[in-house]
Amino acid sequence: MNSKLQTLQGMHDRLPENMKKRQWVIQRITSVFEKYGFEPMETPAIEYWEILSGKDVYGDEEKLIYKFQDRGRRDVGMRFDFTVPLARVVSSYPDITMPFKRYQIQTVWRCDKPQYGRFREFYQCDVDIVGTESVIAEAELIILASEIFEAIGFKKFMTKINSRKLLQTICEYSGVDKSKEFELFRAMDKRDRIGIDGVKENFEVLGLSKEAKEKIISSLGQPIAQLEKLLPNKEGIAQVRTLFSYLENLGCNMKHIMFDPWLSRGFDYYTGPIFETIIEGTKVGSVAGGGRYDNLIGKFNDKDIPAVGISIGLERVLMVMDKLDMNPKIASPVKFLVTLFDEPTIKYALQVAKDIRNSGVGVEVYPEAIKIGKQFKYASKKKIPFVVIAGPDELKTHSVAIKDMKSGTQETLKLAKLNTWLQKKLEVRK
Amino acid sequence: MNSKLQTLQGMHDRLPENMKKRQWVIQRITSVFEKYGFEPMETPAIEYWEILSGKDVYGDEEKLIYKFQDRGRRDVGMRFDFTVPLARVVSSYPDITMPFKRYQIQTVWRCDKPQYGRFREFYQCDVDIVGTESVIAEAELIILASEIFEAIGFKKFMTKINSRKLLQTICEYSGVDKSKEFELFRAMDKRDRIGIDGVKENFEVLGLSKEAKEKIISSLGQPIAQLEKLLPNKEGIAQVRTLFSYLENLGCNMKHIMFDPWLSRGFDYYTGPIFETIIEGTKVGSVAGGGRYDNLIGKFNDKDIPAVGISIGLERVLMVMDKLDMNPKIASPVKFLVTLFDEPTIKYALQVAKDIRNSGVGVEVYPEAIKIGKQFKYASKKKIPFVVIAGPDELKTHSVAIKDMKSGTQETLKLAKLNTWLQKKLEVRK
Repeated sequence: MNSKLQTLQGMHDRLPENMKKRQWVIQRITSVFEKYGFEPMETPAIEYWEILSGKDVYGDEEKLIYKFQDRGRRDVGMRFDFTVPLARVVSSYPDITMPFKRYQIQTVWRCDKPQYGRFREFYQCDVDIVGTESVIAEAELIILASEIFEAIGFKKFMTKINSRKLLQTICEYSGVDKSKEFELFRAMDKRDRIGIDGVKENFEVLGLSKEAKEKIISSLGQPIAQLEKLLPNKEGIAQVRTLFSYLENLGCNMKHIMFDPWLSRGFDYYTGPIFETIIEGTKVGSVAGGGRYDNLIGKFNDKDIPAVGISIGLERVLMVMDKLDMNPKIASPVKFLVTLFDEPTIKYALQVAKDIRNSGVGVEVYPEAIKIGKQFKYASKKKIPFVVIAGPDELKTHSVAIKDMKSGTQETLKLAKLNTWLQKKLEVRK
Repeated sequence: MNSKLQTLQGMHDRLPENMKKRQWVIQRITSVFEKYGFEPMETPAIEYWEILSGKDVYGDEEKLIYKFQDRGRRDVGMRFDFTVPLARVVSSYPDITMPFKRYQIQTVWRCDKPQYGRFREFYQCDVDIVGTESVIAEAELIILASEIFEAIGFKKFMTKINSRKLLQTICEYSGVDKSKEFELFRAMDKRDRIGIDGVKENFEVLGLSKEAKEKIISSLGQPIAQLEKLLPNKEGIAQVRTLFSYLENLGCNMKHIMFDPWLSRGFDYYTGPIFETIIEGTKVGSVAGGGRYDNLIGKFNDKDIPAVGISIGLERVLMVMDKLDMNPKIASPVKFLVTLFDEPTIKYALQVAKDIRNSGVGVEVYPEAIKIGKQFKYASKKKIPFVVIAGPDELKTHSVAIKDMKSGTQETLKLAKLNTWLQKKLEVRK
């Protein structure tokens, strides 16, 4: 790329090849979202700074927001995620149908250090259910995620489930000070990157007592039945058990689901079940993640509004697909390239294009009567399956020559028979 | 809306009702774009200020760009349109297939005075063909626009066609100084808003001689055959005539097409044919517009790269649809709401939901066992056609009750027969 013509670091052009794959994945994601009753919503790219920062939702991450003053000298910032915009929307429109189930697929911007798999502009695909405390909502989101990863074609994926309530109980049981809880969760969340030993070192930094540290690490290593016996407060465990039973009743394929007491998630605002999906055998990190956050949405109008959501990491999904060599077969919407042979036959070629278009099929007309070889090359680059020649010979005999780019065969047929031919051909190719 | 929770002026939340209609229209637009061989492309929301302003493409409008410094103190600006990003992309990637036919559907931002039909964040839908001087490109774009407006359901629309070359010839013939040409075009472009008399007054302000003024106005009133006789330079006329003949050959429905010598377009960069589509009987302004701009794309790498494009004004299309009461029938992707009757039957209801989902159809589960009437109301708000009850009576008899929300009839059937029933029902509703 010409260096004077760069995009900003961490922001990328999405050229046709990337876009077609992206749209293919987004189409699969939205079609599952919609089958589960989620409806589309979008919010502006820019919000008042007061909205973005007012409730301290992002904590430390707030410094990653693109902040500036607009031409009216108002402090504004660019969409960092969809959680705050969702909270604003729910609080602003009292007539919204509850439970409110919406999905939002747009770009977000984070002034983060660009690195592998981390961009400054990227797509997020969020679904949230606002207005219910029922764990059925969690179950639906987890099943929906499974259905999406299956629809995309992933074979080995795993959704890990835990509960912030359970983690809090473990902290309490281990004698960890309430004020250190969230720092502890943040340390645990780095496990995939820095390993369990790294996490233990981080526990050190938090200033946990040796006893607390050992109690936590031993608790996190227990199977759920053991934990249930161990812990005095059973609420978190009960939540996880209910969620698992709903998943089973709803027909979730349980081979993609596991309980993982180490799962903690990096955001402060979670209050109940949390979950994260990874594709096994890749090191790209999680491709989906979410959880319950019952105290956030209501902050904007001082009401109690429970909510739960999951976010599909589109950029990571695309990266994993590349890594695993998953290339969805995307057929060209254009089936015919009508070439231009020479100036005098242009009108004839255009009429042929019209005739083929009348059958409803996608047709490109090469706009110039350049060397026919170059026009064929164009068809091959754009994966157009048939190339049509309507030159002087064809004009004389009221016919067209059609080359099948796949088989390499070429046939000449009368214009009068074109329609029947098309119908037959298109049926075969369907 | 709660005033403390506002979006920025001129920027709007796109709630589900709006989004569904928007997606319906976008789907029609893209499917036509793709049938004509255009491929999707997207560019980042933020560009270096040097790119946006470097070639003085936007002229006076440059002051409408959201400009700021990012956290690294670099001058940047938000996407104002897709023309400069397209020029940057074409210049940056030498391997791009030419002619390059891409579409771009994203939001753009303009810090304009918000007013009726003018927003600060809005969608644009652009198609451009880069790399050919052939007027076949213009013809394809005009036909494609017609096909889009027909697909959306508009009956009375008109694409007006003119040529900047022709307008320049008229200026020359009328003795208008070359330096005043563009100001004159800008004045003419206001005709729809201020009327011909208003335009004439603006001519006054430009300081045109009485003779020049009269010559222009009289020329602009001539039919094309008359103009051809009148003007010494026939190039512009020839261009328009070629375009019309291509349109006819390509099967364009000519009742939606007219030559309009008054059409001028507001951007400086057009060099050849220009066009604009209006929906008759509305005063929203044009819903599509474009033209040839052969000197812009190449500016970024000092090459000659011809280009032509058309932009569909999605926001205006939506406004006109509202005005004309055009409400596309958009079926709910969810066909069944499974209600929850009481706590003990939740698991049974979830299993029923699973059974219906297995048929491949969209199903929502109401997440709480609240009053059944409220659950029915939810189904009706979300236009879900069938509501399923799987309560204690149904559990006892291994059956479900299904209410058809349209007819109001309710039937009870054995679980074992659910599948056959579904197959029959779904076939009928297809």
